[in-house]
Formats: sequence, structure tokens, C-alpha cells
Amino acid sequence: MATRTRMSREARQDQLLDLGAELFADRSYEDVHIEELSEVAGVSRGLLYHYFPTKRAFFAAMVRRESGRMSDLTVTDDTLPILDQLRQGIESYLDYCQDHKMGVKAIFHGAASADPEIQAIIEEDIGLQQARITSAVEPVGQPTELMQIAVRSWLHFMRNACHQWLDAKETTRDEVRDLCAQALLGMLLALPEDSRPSALADLSDLAES
Amino acid sequence: MATRTRMSREARQDQLLDLGAELFADRSYEDVHIEELSEVAGVSRGLLYHYFPTKRAFFAAMVRRESGRMSDLTVTDDTLPILDQLRQGIESYLDYCQDHKMGVKAIFHGAASADPEIQAIIEEDIGLQQARITSAVEPVGQPTELMQIAVRSWLHFMRNACHQWLDAKETTRDEVRDLCAQALLGMLLALPEDSRPSALADLSDLAES
Repeated sequence: MATRTRMSREARQDQLLDLGAELFADRSYEDVHIEELSEVAGVSRGLLYHYFPTKRAFFAAMVRRESGRMSDLTVTDDTLPILDQLRQGIESYLDYCQDHKMGVKAIFHGAASADPEIQAIIEEDIGLQQARITSAVEPVGQPTELMQIAVRSWLHFMRNACHQWLDAKETTRDEVRDLCAQALLGMLLALPEDSRPSALADLSDLAES
Repeated sequence: MATRTRMSREARQDQLLDLGAELFADRSYEDVHIEELSEVAGVSRGLLYHYFPTKRAFFAAMVRRESGRMSDLTVTDDTLPILDQLRQGIESYLDYCQDHKMGVKAIFHGAASADPEIQAIIEEDIGLQQARITSAVEPVGQPTELMQIAVRSWLHFMRNACHQWLDAKETTRDEVRDLCAQALLGMLLALPEDSRPSALADLSDLAES
């Protein structure tokens, strides 16, 4: 089987995933035929099927790659003051959305129509971010159920705001960052006392400065 | 064809939708076989298929029914002060979640695996709620893009918090209501001045009382 360019297995997979993300970015999962990818990439269908036997397999590989990238990119420096850590986390997520716009949009559009395996990877990502945030704001005690609900709901807020921003016309990156930061901070500060994170003293000081 | 109880078409459909919601509430869309419903409801498969020829058709009917219920139940009284309207909207959504727990859980679990038609109904619901809130907080001027993003993201926050609460062990309804109200209020008050809703003066007064 002839391919136009000889590439390592990994490089070829990466190239196919990049090109595929563009196909899925602005169309629904159902609309995309995975065979289009062989034309765009200039590879035979046989080679494409060798790497990704089905559309589901391709989409799952794309989600797994984005998930790994995102959790690597959004690690924060836990020696920083808590407010800086939270800001750094939001900035990193915005960086990630900007740098991998096609992949982010593809997953956002496609995940809804995809299978439970893909949904599970996305939920796992959210769970990881939730654990990072609760352990940052509550480094000693046990987070209450209400705090967990609040942080997880805020993660949905942030993801949604960032995804909307990718298609926004007037809204700036800084506006979205501040919106997300203020929403998180305001919500944590407004929790009832027994659910308020113990790092709150720091937050209150900095929030008022 | 014999059925155990004679029911009007509408009553039978409603009964099937109620029983079906329980099947989907704690299982993924893929796990549920629509044929189980004929056993639970005590009707023949023929009669079931007459009303709902496929699992997708059944699920879509369930989503449409819940969508209609929710938009009817969450209408707020626009003669009330703005803060009361927002609180009333959140209370109504919580009422709706409590009264139709099985349907809400079914849609929350199942929507991810369902088809674009269903996803579109859910997005339309969110769009309707978004329009109601922006026109309540910005009754005169044109809401900015940032305000739209903020309100839509908050709707995802609220839906997520309410859905998590349905399976929560310790968290009270009032805690979830206050969490959602504070998150919305805090976020609207923190918007930059040109995006801050014109009803904000009222909000600021009431928020501090």
C-alpha cells in the first residue's frame, strides 16, 4: 500500500487526529463521515482503518489525547497562594482552549452524540479538576458534599463559558477569565460556614484587596 | 389485542412515559431495552411499538414532555422585584426536579448518548431560560455578548447543581437554592460595568440587605 509521505506510526496518528479535529469542530458527530479523513490526509482508506477502524474509535482516541493534554497543561503550582493557583488553573484552561481550539470544539459538539466510553473520559476529567480544586482550597479538612457540588457545578460553568468564548465575537479572553474567577470566588465565599473552604481566610483577604 | 386495562390514548402514553422514566433514571441509555417497558407496564410489545416504534422515539417523547413541563413550571411573575423573580425561577426549577425526579435523571443520564434531535431540545430549553433571565435583568437595553455567556454558563451551573443534589446525601434543598442564587447574583454584580445588567441597582440594594 502506497502512502504519499512515510511517517512514523505516532506522527501519522497525530496528523490524522489533528485533521480529524478540524472535521468535527463545526459539525455534529453524525454529519462527519470518517472516510473524508482519508481524502483530507491524503492516505488510503486501508491505512486510515488500520489506525482507526471506526468513527467511534477515532473520536475516542481524539478525546483521550485532549484529555491527557488538558490534565498535563492545567497542573498548578501548589506553592503559590491559593488565589494565584485558581487564576493559574483558569488561565491554563483558556490557553488549552486557544491552542487546541479544533479539538475542544470537536469534543464539545461531538461528545453529546458519542458513546458512554467518551462521556466517561470527560466525566473523569471533570472529577480530576474537581479533586485538584477541592484539595487546593481545603488542603487539611474533608470537603463537604455541598462544597463538592459547588466546585463541580462551577467546572461546568467554566467549561461552558470557555467553549462559548471560542465562538464569541466581542468578548475578550480577560473578560472570560475574570468572569470565571469571580464566579468561583464569589461562590466559595458565599458557602455556609461549615462548607466554606479552610483556605477561605486567604481568599477573603485577597478578594478585598 | 388484549390489554389488561383500557385507557385513553393520552393516559396510556403518559403511563408509559412515567414508567419508562424510571427505567432510564439510574441506567445509561444503552443499557435500557425498550422491550422491558412492555413487561413493567403490562402491555403487549405490539401496543408499545404502536405508541413508540423505537427507543429513540420513546426517549425523544420523554424529553419533549419534560421540556414542556419545565418551561410551564418555571414561568416567573415579572411584576415581582428582580431578586424575587430570580429566586422564584430557581425555586421552580428545584420544584420541577423534585416532582419529576425520574424524568430529570433519565434525561441527564441519557441525553449524552442520545441523538442530535434530543440534544437540540435541551439546548432550546437552555436558550429559553437564558432569554427569560436576560430580559428580566436587562429589560430595556441590549444584553452584551459577555452577559449572554455569563447567564448561559450559569444555567449549566444551576442544572448541574440541581441534578447532583437529586443524588446527594447531606445537602439540603435550601443550600442548593442559596448556592445557585449567590452564584448568579455574585457573577452578575462582578461583570464589567458595560456588561452589568441595568436592573443591577435593585440587585445591589437587595444583595446587601
